[in-house]
Amino acid sequence: MRRIGILTGGGDCPGINAVIRAVAKTAINDYGWEVFGIEDGYLGLIENRFRRLTYEDVSGILTLGGTILGTSNKTNPFAQPTKFKKRIVFRDFSRRCLNNFEKMKLESLVCIGGDGTLRIAYKFFEKGVPVIGIPKTIDNDVWGTDQTFGFDSAVLNATEAIDKLHTTAQSHHRVMIVEVMGRYAGWLALCSGIAGGGDIILIPEIPFSIEKVCEKVKERSRRGKRFSIVVVAEGAYPQGGKMVVQRIVKDSPDPIRLGGIGNFVAKQIEDRTEIECRVTVLGHLLRGGGPSAFDRILATRFGEYAVRLIKKGNFGEMVVLQGREIGSLSLAEAVSRIKKIPPTHHLLKVALAMGTSLGV
Amino acid sequence: MRRIGILTGGGDCPGINAVIRAVAKTAINDYGWEVFGIEDGYLGLIENRFRRLTYEDVSGILTLGGTILGTSNKTNPFAQPTKFKKRIVFRDFSRRCLNNFEKMKLESLVCIGGDGTLRIAYKFFEKGVPVIGIPKTIDNDVWGTDQTFGFDSAVLNATEAIDKLHTTAQSHHRVMIVEVMGRYAGWLALCSGIAGGGDIILIPEIPFSIEKVCEKVKERSRRGKRFSIVVVAEGAYPQGGKMVVQRIVKDSPDPIRLGGIGNFVAKQIEDRTEIECRVTVLGHLLRGGGPSAFDRILATRFGEYAVRLIKKGNFGEMVVLQGREIGSLSLAEAVSRIKKIPPTHHLLKVALAMGTSLGV
Amino acid sequence: MRRIGILTGGGDCPGINAVIRAVAKTAINDYGWEVFGIEDGYLGLIENRFRRLTYEDVSGILTLGGTILGTSNKTNPFAQPTKFKKRIVFRDFSRRCLNNFEKMKLESLVCIGGDGTLRIAYKFFEKGVPVIGIPKTIDNDVWGTDQTFGFDSAVLNATEAIDKLHTTAQSHHRVMIVEVMGRYAGWLALCSGIAGGGDIILIPEIPFSIEKVCEKVKERSRRGKRFSIVVVAEGAYPQGGKMVVQRIVKDSPDPIRLGGIGNFVAKQIEDRTEIECRVTVLGHLLRGGGPSAFDRILATRFGEYAVRLIKKGNFGEMVVLQGREIGSLSLAEAVSRIKKIPPTHHLLKVALAMGTSLGV
Amino acid sequence: MRRIGILTGGGDCPGINAVIRAVAKTAINDYGWEVFGIEDGYLGLIENRFRRLTYEDVSGILTLGGTILGTSNKTNPFAQPTKFKKRIVFRDFSRRCLNNFEKMKLESLVCIGGDGTLRIAYKFFEKGVPVIGIPKTIDNDVWGTDQTFGFDSAVLNATEAIDKLHTTAQSHHRVMIVEVMGRYAGWLALCSGIAGGGDIILIPEIPFSIEKVCEKVKERSRRGKRFSIVVVAEGAYPQGGKMVVQRIVKDSPDPIRLGGIGNFVAKQIEDRTEIECRVTVLGHLLRGGGPSAFDRILATRFGEYAVRLIKKGNFGEMVVLQGREIGSLSLAEAVSRIKKIPPTHHLLKVALAMGTSLGV
Repeated sequence: MRRIGILTGGGDCPGINAVIRAVAKTAINDYGWEVFGIEDGYLGLIENRFRRLTYEDVSGILTLGGTILGTSNKTNPFAQPTKFKKRIVFRDFSRRCLNNFEKMKLESLVCIGGDGTLRIAYKFFEKGVPVIGIPKTIDNDVWGTDQTFGFDSAVLNATEAIDKLHTTAQSHHRVMIVEVMGRYAGWLALCSGIAGGGDIILIPEIPFSIEKVCEKVKERSRRGKRFSIVVVAEGAYPQGGKMVVQRIVKDSPDPIRLGGIGNFVAKQIEDRTEIECRVTVLGHLLRGGGPSAFDRILATRFGEYAVRLIKKGNFGEMVVLQGREIGSLSLAEAVSRIKKIPPTHHLLKVALAMGTSLGV
Repeated sequence: MRRIGILTGGGDCPGINAVIRAVAKTAINDYGWEVFGIEDGYLGLIENRFRRLTYEDVSGILTLGGTILGTSNKTNPFAQPTKFKKRIVFRDFSRRCLNNFEKMKLESLVCIGGDGTLRIAYKFFEKGVPVIGIPKTIDNDVWGTDQTFGFDSAVLNATEAIDKLHTTAQSHHRVMIVEVMGRYAGWLALCSGIAGGGDIILIPEIPFSIEKVCEKVKERSRRGKRFSIVVVAEGAYPQGGKMVVQRIVKDSPDPIRLGGIGNFVAKQIEDRTEIECRVTVLGHLLRGGGPSAFDRILATRFGEYAVRLIKKGNFGEMVVLQGREIGSLSLAEAVSRIKKIPPTHHLLKVALAMGTSLGV
Repeated sequence: MRRIGILTGGGDCPGINAVIRAVAKTAINDYGWEVFGIEDGYLGLIENRFRRLTYEDVSGILTLGGTILGTSNKTNPFAQPTKFKKRIVFRDFSRRCLNNFEKMKLESLVCIGGDGTLRIAYKFFEKGVPVIGIPKTIDNDVWGTDQTFGFDSAVLNATEAIDKLHTTAQSHHRVMIVEVMGRYAGWLALCSGIAGGGDIILIPEIPFSIEKVCEKVKERSRRGKRFSIVVVAEGAYPQGGKMVVQRIVKDSPDPIRLGGIGNFVAKQIEDRTEIECRVTVLGHLLRGGGPSAFDRILATRFGEYAVRLIKKGNFGEMVVLQGREIGSLSLAEAVSRIKKIPPTHHLLKVALAMGTSLGV
Repeated sequence: MRRIGILTGGGDCPGINAVIRAVAKTAINDYGWEVFGIEDGYLGLIENRFRRLTYEDVSGILTLGGTILGTSNKTNPFAQPTKFKKRIVFRDFSRRCLNNFEKMKLESLVCIGGDGTLRIAYKFFEKGVPVIGIPKTIDNDVWGTDQTFGFDSAVLNATEAIDKLHTTAQSHHRVMIVEVMGRYAGWLALCSGIAGGGDIILIPEIPFSIEKVCEKVKERSRRGKRFSIVVVAEGAYPQGGKMVVQRIVKDSPDPIRLGGIGNFVAKQIEDRTEIECRVTVLGHLLRGGGPSAFDRILATRFGEYAVRLIKKGNFGEMVVLQGREIGSLSLAEAVSRIKKIPPTHHLLKVALAMGTSLGV
């Protein structure tokens, strides 16, 4: 009987448990394999912490947010930050991981995670571990897959929040600024911005002009719309570069109120338009709660497919969604870059056609 | 200045208003055209009832369910049922519609609807009306598009309902049967069944064996799972054909309790397993409420693209989703058949891998 | 160390687990008592099925719908329907229950349930069992308490459903009829009807005139409102008595479509106004899902207070909400009658002031 | 025909539109009065901006969040901040308001708002305006009423957010800190904390000991619970007074990350326990979106009752909820103090019984 291991790394996201369930059910139902969950991501691999996942263990977890295995998002077995004589040094625990993998008598390893987790998975594959990757991120920025599970749920959560802020914006004639996750790619901001009817959407792919942003706010005001909704990705930055933000923040007499880019944009709009702004940082609310129906299905498909890849021996691959089909891609290719919004993407044109400003 | 008309036919579904808004905003913003909404679907075309849609009219309707234009789902201008001397006769009002179309001075017509609405749209196109179709159905059974808007919202609604019924099923050790829409295609049942962790999913594409259904219920009972969730599409039927249902219902001593296929399945399970069943018919709850984020985006993309097709003069086409891209297809092709679940579809394999029975 | 038992009877409802958790946490934290859960309501008492509930067992169940203990809603230990020579006879298992209660070495018993469960609890109290009752019903019809937990969640669920149906009603110019639970009392229909902006609300306390109902529909139609929302409690009936419904149903040429009172009302309106009606029976959806914040708090307060009553030795009492305060009442008084809506209740006046018809 | 005015002041909150609708419908339906909405709170009274509210205008607004009349929360007609020679001076516009009130030919004024708005309403009453107050605040801190509308919706929103953060907390073994509104009273923190199963709840009424807070976190960690949820009201502060926070913030080498009390608590816990913390500030999300069923009903009752008070001539009163009944109280009494959580309140005992720490 084959034994497969599974671990979840990086920030949690809705649908991880659905993947774990799908991997376990497929492996147990269809092949009679044994499935072992490694606790707290790669940390559990270093510390040899794992437990058997029975059919019962994964029953009923389809709808649960988070991950029943726990995760760690600062662990890197190849360069783990460790305290040594009061300093932080980076140690390589990969050999220990390989030993533990053998001690657990695992024959393959399913790694569920985002960019960071998948990079490490690929390194282990290069060292001979039969690895299958499953992409997970609410940012939707993993290269090679049209969508990652967790993204649809995050867009739903963000859109619901924008809907809520609309009522306050309208009642108070305010600019409401919503900061959503997305350090390198603006998928979440763009999709929730279109879905929530945002008036201005700022994404990392398009450095914005604060003048254009203010112009849009004032233009709306002139047309009698005394409120605006601005959706901004945490990784968005003004033309001139991220340094501009740092400098302005540093010179501000009121640094405490400033934090992320949302606060920066608010301050700029208030200073230039005298219209009151309010900032809401969605942060962890975006990744919380149970997965949407779409994510439950995508996660289940990913999990099932991962087991088929193991059966076929296609290691070193990552499960992907391409159009409506599930397929796979080499991990080498998948971790080679980040999936950003291409400048000609239909969603950008659609946003503009709706009268939304992209800050340029 | 060009004048375009827009109408919505068939059952309402979440996202119609998002399409109307997208058509109007794109036409007004990008080309300066005038947009006219025809009221209550083809009925308004027969009766010459329409109104101008300004930018203000479509502002804020993105999130609203239903259709601000009204709809009618029994109107067929080519064979309209009309009372005549106490009998129903079918009259052809298509000439009157063409006249009204000219009287309104419209240059093109956007028809948003399902199979029936699109067939009529195609007939008008054959008669020379510059028509663009936009597919809309919560059943997801329109040929040529990977998905219709409204479907994602309906799956969310159905899944949320299944989640709710789970708690009662577990507490009472009952079989809960959920009947969802889907007369010819089981997309909604299959997707919400997978997303809701249904134990048995019955779809029109696969006539079911009631023995297999009961076997599954009993097998679960033997394994200590004293409840089961059955998701059944309204168009599902047992092996042997729909007549079997009619006959059994007719012979039943208790006909009043019987209605749709959900009740039929419940009766059969109760008779054969002595396990208590409860039926919930989701019906109109599935199509109610505001659109999901996904549907808002898809509907907005559809609406924007429809205007581009008008601009290019690609009449007689229907907007479609193919993979992640928006494209178009001839209406002739689109209305030539219904999109059913193919027997080799990945979702069917995934359901089976999760231990779900498809009743065969 | 004292040992207390807890059981849940009747239909499940959101908040039961919150009560179980509160009873167990308070008993364990504050007094160091042991808590035992009896499975499947009184059935577990008959069959001596129970299990210890530790602090861990009740951790995390606050938000879960249903009951972790299971329930049975046809069990009556004093007259249990039992098969005997192919007939159903009623047997008295109360002696066996008393023996089991002693065998389990329990010192008191917390019974969570509605009218039926509480009546049986009272009988056991009369036989010497130190019983505490906790009222639970989504119908809100338990005498002596201003509200039961589960009711707020059910009103939320019903209101959300009515909101959803509104969009379809408006788009199609239809009468949407929503049948909600409430056999003897119309609290759920009245509250969700007011919260959902229902145009007509029919409750068991006020037999309705179908003429007045149709008049309201037609009057709205005359004022340009081409749709109406009718919220009807399952126990509502027309003036002239419930027999009227039976007779009309019996004489109907189309009995299969008729089921509950919702279908009856629909048929009458369609026959008399020629306006299309659609019926939605909410049924089990109302009691499904997790408890609302209000119900979680109320259930937690009830559970905590029940343990205080045990500590004080106030057996034979039921926990109640009076205004904003938690208190108690003798079970004898509580089960003496059903709490119906009094004819002078403010909510009735409010509904009328909003222009809602009560069908009279 | 009588003419009544209505205005909404202060922060928006779910249910305001339900009140406006109820006032208008009752006044129009039952007495044939005319209703006028004053725009943007007292600002509209100063600037003589108002509009007639017809039956149609208030139709369909029951479910909408925010206020259709607009609001302003910095306007004080008795001391309005005005720019004068580049300085801010406070001007008294009350005379102008009285003149406008007469110009509009209003006979009474319904003021919907929180503490600030009601104080001003009371001043106008003292100057002879026939005023009725309706309390509105998500903080639930208005004296004399058991509950304000908006509070139930805010508790629901906060609880839903806490539920979402639970999954991340569990997966990452983190302390999640949720900051909710409540400057002077901790009702929202206490209720959502109990409903969300918070491990630590910090409210303005009970200055907390940061040592006790950390002790609780560590104690949970020792028992194997590697996460904790802390719900903190924005007005909570440590023992020793609010100055302590200021000082610590000032001395912090990393002031930018610090903002509200939530960040302060996080920093302290991280420094003392080395367990990772994450802060979520709910802010405007709490007051956004449509009202809950409870709030729709309460708001409707308040609005109806306000019109009855006008009819009876009971001016200078505020509508209140007492137990299950709607009644009224003199505005003088209502604005005399803030409703804080009394030290012996049952909810505090309940929280403690659940094992929740109140930080002392």
